[in-house]
Order: sequence, then structure tokens, then C-alpha cells
Amino acid sequence: MLPGPTNVPDRIMQAMLKPIINHRGPEFHKLYESITQNLKYVFQTKQHAFPITTSGTGIVECAVDNITNPGDKVIVPVFGVFSERLRENITRRGGKPIEIPTKWGDAPKAEQIEKTIKKEKDARAVAVVYNETSTGVTARDLPSIGEVTQKNNIVLLVDAVSILAGENLPVDKWNIDICVGGSQKCLACPPGLAVISVSQKAWEKIEKTASRPYYFDLTLTRESDAKKETPFTPAIPLFYALDEALKMIREEGLDARFKRHAECAKAFYAAFEALEIQPYSSPEARSNTVIAINVPSGVDGAQARQIMKNRYRVEIAGGMGKIKEQIFRIGCMGIVSENETLTTIGALENALNDLNYKVKTGAGLEAARKIFH
Amino acid sequence: MLPGPTNVPDRIMQAMLKPIINHRGPEFHKLYESITQNLKYVFQTKQHAFPITTSGTGIVECAVDNITNPGDKVIVPVFGVFSERLRENITRRGGKPIEIPTKWGDAPKAEQIEKTIKKEKDARAVAVVYNETSTGVTARDLPSIGEVTQKNNIVLLVDAVSILAGENLPVDKWNIDICVGGSQKCLACPPGLAVISVSQKAWEKIEKTASRPYYFDLTLTRESDAKKETPFTPAIPLFYALDEALKMIREEGLDARFKRHAECAKAFYAAFEALEIQPYSSPEARSNTVIAINVPSGVDGAQARQIMKNRYRVEIAGGMGKIKEQIFRIGCMGIVSENETLTTIGALENALNDLNYKVKTGAGLEAARKIFH
Repeated sequence: MLPGPTNVPDRIMQAMLKPIINHRGPEFHKLYESITQNLKYVFQTKQHAFPITTSGTGIVECAVDNITNPGDKVIVPVFGVFSERLRENITRRGGKPIEIPTKWGDAPKAEQIEKTIKKEKDARAVAVVYNETSTGVTARDLPSIGEVTQKNNIVLLVDAVSILAGENLPVDKWNIDICVGGSQKCLACPPGLAVISVSQKAWEKIEKTASRPYYFDLTLTRESDAKKETPFTPAIPLFYALDEALKMIREEGLDARFKRHAECAKAFYAAFEALEIQPYSSPEARSNTVIAINVPSGVDGAQARQIMKNRYRVEIAGGMGKIKEQIFRIGCMGIVSENETLTTIGALENALNDLNYKVKTGAGLEAARKIFH
Repeated sequence: MLPGPTNVPDRIMQAMLKPIINHRGPEFHKLYESITQNLKYVFQTKQHAFPITTSGTGIVECAVDNITNPGDKVIVPVFGVFSERLRENITRRGGKPIEIPTKWGDAPKAEQIEKTIKKEKDARAVAVVYNETSTGVTARDLPSIGEVTQKNNIVLLVDAVSILAGENLPVDKWNIDICVGGSQKCLACPPGLAVISVSQKAWEKIEKTASRPYYFDLTLTRESDAKKETPFTPAIPLFYALDEALKMIREEGLDARFKRHAECAKAFYAAFEALEIQPYSSPEARSNTVIAINVPSGVDGAQARQIMKNRYRVEIAGGMGKIKEQIFRIGCMGIVSENETLTTIGALENALNDLNYKVKTGAGLEAARKIFH
């Protein structure tokens, strides 16, 4: 129950055992086309969508490097570890991050972005983490942010690594120019792949970007995409897995998938309210895919997680960065259902009791069960 | 029988099905340590060796970007598609490639490198493709090249993507500072991972390199390595596969593995001599891991490969770049043995005969069998 890598269904794991094929041959072309068609469904886009062999941080770097020239200003709200990484990527590229500092646990607002755009008229892009995995925060103002960037003709880059396929994210409708996701989160796939969507407006900027890196050059990816290939050797077993994962998403349907994630999240938050354990994020910013809660005072978080893992066979994460020991993070992603939700809540209740922290045993489970029934 | 991806033993494929674990937990630490220990054995190094989730081209970019500052001169012999890519990586990084043009099919010589170093006294590095996958050429002067760079205190970067674990390559003994390999070649692993060794001399240069990229920053990799982790989410199933592949290499032993590759290569070349089919590469440069031969005149190479694949179930590759339709390339890599060698030779004899190209049927097989018995 980590906020990635998440549990992977057997059907997706088994898909990795298909033969290692020539990545320049017709069998691969068929696999590649199936993946990109279904990726467009997941991104809700009619534009380009590609799989790339790398991690979440790698695909964010790819997006930043393709859209940013050294010296370019990029507006970036910073409200957790992954938006810090986004800022770091802009700096390493030689860009100038125009930071919008945001309290950890809160989400950036469209009006802050708009005000900053008015001040920094030559900004080239706005880069936003849609779901901050480190704080359990979703930037629900994203559609309004998209309206602002669209009106001002600025590129909008969105890091959706830990939310893509877990909550509604129609990239065309919301005017998102580059959107990136990870395989090992809500797609319920093994780690090792990342995915990216690119709009026509983004291509116009990318084509004018100087000295792109090689492995992450999106114009090479687009060229190979026309041949149903990747520019460089792909992680073939993971491509099979992603293909299967995307087929499962189509079978379930995006709406049903979003509803399932939202219902499990609601059950988690109801359980923690009943147990008087506070979410870390502010109420309007609470993520449906990463549930972050404060470690109850007097409890050793690392020890509680250890007990959950060893005695109750449920692994959750601690915090990251400056709140490392302060929170628990639960991945509510991918194949999460009533079963995983209740098992996790029960394991936490038990672990806290084992540590002599008095929780009302069963109260969390009772509150969660009411959401499901 | 492609020059990568190569055939992967079931044992390695099955390893991918192990549970998707937390890449920040003790189970992963154990896996990571097993991989890096065995990688050091394969690189024959006491220095650092890391696995990174990317392709061969990606790991070459990683090596170049960590060692090169924008403006730096890097000496690079160019004698095929992958040395062209190496040159391209230097250019994209903002470096100045000092090219040593070498005829395709031939290998660069240590004396050319030495002469160029004397002329370009401020060159920062020498970058050499040890095995040109596009021409079937091995740069057998590599130990002498290492002596030259060592004497001149210049960093030596070696692209060994298609030869690592297929032929002797003791990186410490040969004074190689950065050496890169791919998972899907002689390691007999699925594609998606790359490996890299880094010497103390290389670290001294890397630490002084400006504005390294993020995903490929080797100093972050070294920091995480000390914790037995990767800096960013790794492709866990492929890490399991690599671990198993490296264990199989230890069980066989490097010397036996090199001997097996050399024997199969000898059989291939003997067969083609008997069939009067010319190798593309010059005799002293012939690779033991990529066998490149001229398509016999009058034969349509693509058609012959199609027949081999569809009728005789053996897939080999055509050429790349300017010799695309001119040669056949056979991967003599990984698990290659007498069985695969004879099957491939037989399939080619049959396909050529099917195309009414008169080869002495059986002559190739007979010559090859003599090598094995």
C-alpha cells in the first residue's frame, strides 16, 4: 500500500513473460500502437502520447528540457518534495524557476499563477505538480490554471506521476500541453516506464528549443512514433505489462476507475476521522490517490510501520524531506478496492494498539465500512 | 539471433515475477547489493559499478554528460552508427568532438589516438566504442588506447554496450575510467537496463563537471549506492532479471563465457568462409559478439531475412545507417551455443537456396561443426 510502486495484478505480471521481440519488427509495431492508442484514452487526448523507459523524475526532466531553453523563466508552485524536484529540474536545465511558495499541505491557486504571469510577462511556461506524492495534496485548481495559461498563451506542464488514471485528468479539455505519468502508480504496472502527452502548442515550443538532450529528445520520439517504434531500445517486458494494464483500464472504464479511487479515499479519510488521526493536507486539497496522515503524537512512526509490515503484512510509507518522520503515506492507487482499504485500516488500528496508543479499535473500520455499504 | 535484444533464458524471465517491493526497503537493499557486487565481477573492477534504468544510448549520454563540460574537447574515433551517436552525444552536451575518421569495417588504432592527443593538448577525454554493433567490429587496440590515455592523464570512456560479458574487458587493468554496457546484449537479460563502471580518476573529473543532468547525475547515483538504493524509482522486475543473469554469469565463470562466445564466432566465420560469403569487417577487427557479413550479390537481404524468420524461425538483423541493405548482422551473444550457431547457419543456407542463390548446401554447417568437435 505504498504510494508507488503499487500492487500489480497477476495478469499484468504474467504479460512480462511474452517473448523478447525485435523492437524494429512488426510484432513490436502492433504492441506499440496498442499502447499509444490506449494511452490517448487515459490522457483523454487526441494529440500525442508516448511511453518512455525511465522513472517519474526522468520523465519530468524530459518535459522540462524539451520545453525550456537555458535562461527561460518557468513559473513553479513549490509545496512538497516533488515540486522541489521540478524546480531543481528547471535549474539544472539552466532555466530560471519563478517560485510560488506554497505551504506544505496546501495546494497552489489559479489566482496566484495569474498574478505571477502578469508580473513575469516573459515566462515561457507554468509547471505544476498536480498531485504532490510527498504531502497527499491534489491541486484541484488545475482546470482554472489551464484557463489562465491558455488565455496568456503560456505552455502548461503538469506532473501527474501519482494521479494519472486515478482521478479525472482530461488533458485536452483542461489545456494541458505536456502531462507526465508513471507506470508504477495508478496505472498498476511495475516501475520502470513513464508516459507523456504533448499538445500541438507544446510542439511549437519544443521545435524552437535549443540543444535538447538525446535520450529524452521528444522530436526523436515523435519521429519514431510515426513508425510505431521508440527511438532507443525499449524495456520490452514492461511494454507488455503496460499494454495489459491499459487494456484493464479500458475494460473497467475511466469513470468507474476514478469512482473506485474516490470511494476508497473517502473510506480512508472517514476511518481516520473516526480514529481522531488528522490528515496532513488541508481539507479542500486532500488527495484521493495518496492519503497522508499525521503520525499520532507519542507514536514512533517508523516502529508503527514496521509492525504493520511484519505482523500485519501491510506496507505503508513514512514522509519525505522535512516531514520524514511526521506522517504516514498510503497509496490509494491502481487496483485499490474495499479489501485493500479495510485491511490497511485494520492493520494500522492493530499496530497502534500494539504500541499502546489507545485508538477506539474497530471505529476506523466501522466508519470505512459505512462508505462502502 | 539479433545483435540485441538477445534470447533470454527462462530462469531470467521467471525472475521478473518476484513481488514488486519497496525500493527504499531492506529487500531491495539486498537485491541491489547482489547486483552491484556481481557487476563488479563482470567489469573486473574494484571501483564503482551501477545499474541504471535506461537504454544503451541513454547510458552513453549519461557517461558523456557527467564527464564533459560544455566547450570541452573529446576525442572520438567514428567508424559506425554507434560511434556517430557517441559523437552526437558530445555535440548535444555542448562539447567539441575531435573526430578520428575511421573506415567502416576497420577499428581505430592506439597510435591515431596518441597522435591526436599530442595535437589537442587540452582534450578532456577519449571516447571509444569498443564493439561497433553496426559494423561487427571490435577495437582490439583498446588496452593500448588505455595505456595512452593513462600516460596522458586523460579520461577514457568506453561504450561496451554490445560486448560486455561476451569478451574480456578488465576495466581496472585496461585503465578504463567509464565503461557502459546494456542488459539486452551479452548479459542475456531483457532490454530496459544499462550498467556503468566509474573509476576514481573519473570521479575527480565528474565532481568538477558543471550542471549535470538530473536523472543521469552519477554523483546522486553514488550517494544512493552507499545506501544500496537507486536515486530514482528503478525498474524492479528488470533488476530481478539482471540479478539472475549476473548469477548465471558467475556460475559459468567469465573465462568460460568468453571462450564460448569466441568459439561460436569462430564457427560462424568458418561457415561463411566455406560458403564464400565475406565478413563486412577487416580480419583483425572481426567481432566475436556481432557477426556482420555482406549480403551476397544478387540477393535481396530483406527478403532473405524474411524467409529465415518465417520459414526457419531464426531472426537476424540487416545493416544500419549507410550500409542498411548491404549486410546481415547476427548476434553471437549471451546464451549463444553450438545449437544456436548451427541452427542460424543452416537457416541462412536454406534461405539463400530458396532464393535460388547457389550456396554449397551443408558446407557452412560442415565447417562450423569442425570448430565445435
